[in-house]
Amino acid sequence: MRAGPSQEEIRRYNLGSLLRHVHVLGPTSRAQLTALMGLNRSTIGALTADLVAADLVREELPRDRQGAGRPSLVVRPVSERIHVYAFHVGVDRVVAARVGLGCVVLDRREMIHPRGAFSPDDVLRTVTGFVEQMRRSVPADGTCVGAGASVSGLVRHVDGMVSFGPNLGWRDEPFGDRLSGIVGERVMVGNDADLSALAEHLRGVAAGSDDVVYLHGDVGIGGGIIVAGRLLGGHEGYGGEVGHMVVNPSGGPCGCGSRGCWETEIGERALLEAAGRSPDDGRQGVSALIDSASRGDADAQEALRRVGDWLGFGVANLVNIFNPQTVVFGGHLRDVYLASAAQVRGRLNRMGLHASREPVKLRTPALGEDLPLIGAAELAFTRLLDDPLGTP
Amino acid sequence: MRAGPSQEEIRRYNLGSLLRHVHVLGPTSRAQLTALMGLNRSTIGALTADLVAADLVREELPRDRQGAGRPSLVVRPVSERIHVYAFHVGVDRVVAARVGLGCVVLDRREMIHPRGAFSPDDVLRTVTGFVEQMRRSVPADGTCVGAGASVSGLVRHVDGMVSFGPNLGWRDEPFGDRLSGIVGERVMVGNDADLSALAEHLRGVAAGSDDVVYLHGDVGIGGGIIVAGRLLGGHEGYGGEVGHMVVNPSGGPCGCGSRGCWETEIGERALLEAAGRSPDDGRQGVSALIDSASRGDADAQEALRRVGDWLGFGVANLVNIFNPQTVVFGGHLRDVYLASAAQVRGRLNRMGLHASREPVKLRTPALGEDLPLIGAAELAFTRLLDDPLGTP
Repeated sequence: MRAGPSQEEIRRYNLGSLLRHVHVLGPTSRAQLTALMGLNRSTIGALTADLVAADLVREELPRDRQGAGRPSLVVRPVSERIHVYAFHVGVDRVVAARVGLGCVVLDRREMIHPRGAFSPDDVLRTVTGFVEQMRRSVPADGTCVGAGASVSGLVRHVDGMVSFGPNLGWRDEPFGDRLSGIVGERVMVGNDADLSALAEHLRGVAAGSDDVVYLHGDVGIGGGIIVAGRLLGGHEGYGGEVGHMVVNPSGGPCGCGSRGCWETEIGERALLEAAGRSPDDGRQGVSALIDSASRGDADAQEALRRVGDWLGFGVANLVNIFNPQTVVFGGHLRDVYLASAAQVRGRLNRMGLHASREPVKLRTPALGEDLPLIGAAELAFTRLLDDPLGTP
Repeated sequence: MRAGPSQEEIRRYNLGSLLRHVHVLGPTSRAQLTALMGLNRSTIGALTADLVAADLVREELPRDRQGAGRPSLVVRPVSERIHVYAFHVGVDRVVAARVGLGCVVLDRREMIHPRGAFSPDDVLRTVTGFVEQMRRSVPADGTCVGAGASVSGLVRHVDGMVSFGPNLGWRDEPFGDRLSGIVGERVMVGNDADLSALAEHLRGVAAGSDDVVYLHGDVGIGGGIIVAGRLLGGHEGYGGEVGHMVVNPSGGPCGCGSRGCWETEIGERALLEAAGRSPDDGRQGVSALIDSASRGDADAQEALRRVGDWLGFGVANLVNIFNPQTVVFGGHLRDVYLASAAQVRGRLNRMGLHASREPVKLRTPALGEDLPLIGAAELAFTRLLDDPLGTP
């Protein structure tokens, strides 16, 4: 209940709002911006002029001229100059990228490594090399406006400390501070499922949904939840850990120390074990299993039915708790969902409250493998978009 | 991403913010308001003058003068004149009240009835009588600024339709529209646990916590969840139904059509049945059971341990999902929690993620039996507080 904003704050808000539209939608006509923002044409013109002067956007004639009148100028982001650094630390890879305004990937480096046993030191050494390489190709007038990182683990909002990353083997790791030292820039760090949810909400399959449950599966199960258009963080940033919702009181032990967590029933290992396969075969093993099932392998089909049933079980709980518009299945859960949609829907129909289950849309991600990386870039762009002329 | 506010919107925001402080905190000095709102003294003076002119607040000398300087005037809400109508429809009672600005209950009527079988027609007939009686005692210059109602059931935000009230026996009941017709005023309707959460967040034990899980127990289990300072509604208002999170896959049937829901394990009936008592004895039966346990009744103690264990089970799941600062146990769960805190904490320690479970505060409500009624009044005051001079 602080006081309302000043004139200067309003201008800053409007500049940010216009830049955010162009960042998310890509090249956008002045006429569209006028309609989307509810401001008059002269205000849009003045705001655009300020952003052009700062070389954040450019104006140009539209490529496809329609109609006979004077065409509305198109505003587009200056992607090649204004960029952020984005990182993703997953259980089997480290990805680094230079991403331009409008979320255009300008440069991208990746190192795949065996799962587990990849220490913070290893990750930071790899990142140091990637950053040095990427810096060499930045144009002379290039401007870095932020940095963001996605980590598979519980991340404290305030400083990017990774308090627990069971599938990385990390605990109380001051990752945000150490990474910031390497990049020479404050790096904002978030949980990978949270940032994936943000990316799908802004520019993916959940665009237009204000209430979203995003689920990511690999070794563990992560959740990123959007409530009323904002990411659910909780008190310190640890919210959304739906993989550690216990669904099976008589289930097996989980890496978190509890038993019967959702991830012990629907994680990659559970699926592979249910089909009598090696639980260590990871994503490739899951793909092979789903292939076998589609070719009639009864064990693989039964394993998918079983895991699909538990997947639906947890989804029904989350639908009752969150009344979301959209649930998105990412990581290996994408393939599990597609192969067991009948089980998922069946559970949802038996366990979900009618009012909440009927309108919910079940979807797979639109943005592909780099989803958490794109989310990290979005996090990094936040500072610029909140105050376009305040960032050097 | 609409445009920023106009000067007029800022003034409205500041007026609302000042009035909200006085409404929630009670009589507040100008010096406090200056500090809380971050505005200068002359702006606070001008805003206060506007609210005095509208007869929403009055200024007076403080009762306890401290220090030697000129005392800061105290701003207090005009509770006796500015009021709302608030209603609560629970499983065993209908409550109606006229509540003054500052949440002062000016007039209150209640009808207790046997549980179940109380139709919407019955409720509306009772409410009609209550409203007529209360209208007679309104002072000549009294002004009604809104109306709100709390219902034990799933409520659609947009129109107050009660889509499902299993413990009332209601389904797809256009309660908001019918109640509005009786009151002669748009009545905003919310779920009872949601509104209880709002009340405890604004002026109870969860004041100062931005992330709160409020649990209400009677026949069913309701949840009201505050995320980043705002009530979690979900897409249509049905969010927070934590009582229908399935915790026991081999559990018994629930009134919602599913099996093993949290409310089948920790609702009043489950507790009474676990102790070999009649499941229909309701709140009084629960009180008697807790009394017996405190006097050494082994069956009652064992039942409380069992239900306390399941209570902790669900709380741990919610702590992992929401990372709340505060969990509040209301209704019969207040007594169950107090009698089985060791079980609840034990489960939380085994199942909760360390980072989320360590800082969480487990609490009982501060506001007593009328909690959902106070929440309904808060909902009713929203319109005035959003635009103090716009409401007639």
